[in-house]
Amino acid sequence: MSRAVFYHAGCPVCVSAEQTIADHLNEEVEKVHLGEQSKRIEEAEQSGVKSVPALVIDGQVFHINHGAALSALK
Amino acid sequence: MSRAVFYHAGCPVCVSAEQTIADHLNEEVEKVHLGEQSKRIEEAEQSGVKSVPALVIDGQVFHINHGAALSALK
Repeated sequence: MSRAVFYHAGCPVCVSAEQTIADHLNEEVEKVHLGEQSKRIEEAEQSGVKSVPALVIDGQVFHINHGAALSALK
Repeated sequence: MSRAVFYHAGCPVCVSAEQTIADHLNEEVEKVHLGEQSKRIEEAEQSGVKSVPALVIDGQVFHINHGAALSALK
């Protein structure tokens, strides 16, 4: 079973990407708002996330468009 | 019926993204290698694609990671 996590920060770029991408993926996507769940920033960083919105599928990171750098959320 | 097109240029970043993203989308994805199908660069540009790999779903562009600028393919 693969695991998909969508990290975002509530920005317009993020929300637009989130809705469309999540709608079209054939599996459940956990959505993590790093602005509200700052404790998970470290987990995102360890997965290789550099900016949001980002999608992590089975440990592979996809930076989608560019909303904000992760460093801006700390 | 939504339409998904994945534009790429055969680069390692593109191929990796292509396989994973296409595998996880719940619809057929047309894959367009712009290095081999340069006639479709104009179509990609008109869709708003600036770099590859990029995924266009229902006219919405998602630039995924960054392989190459579209201008480098001309």
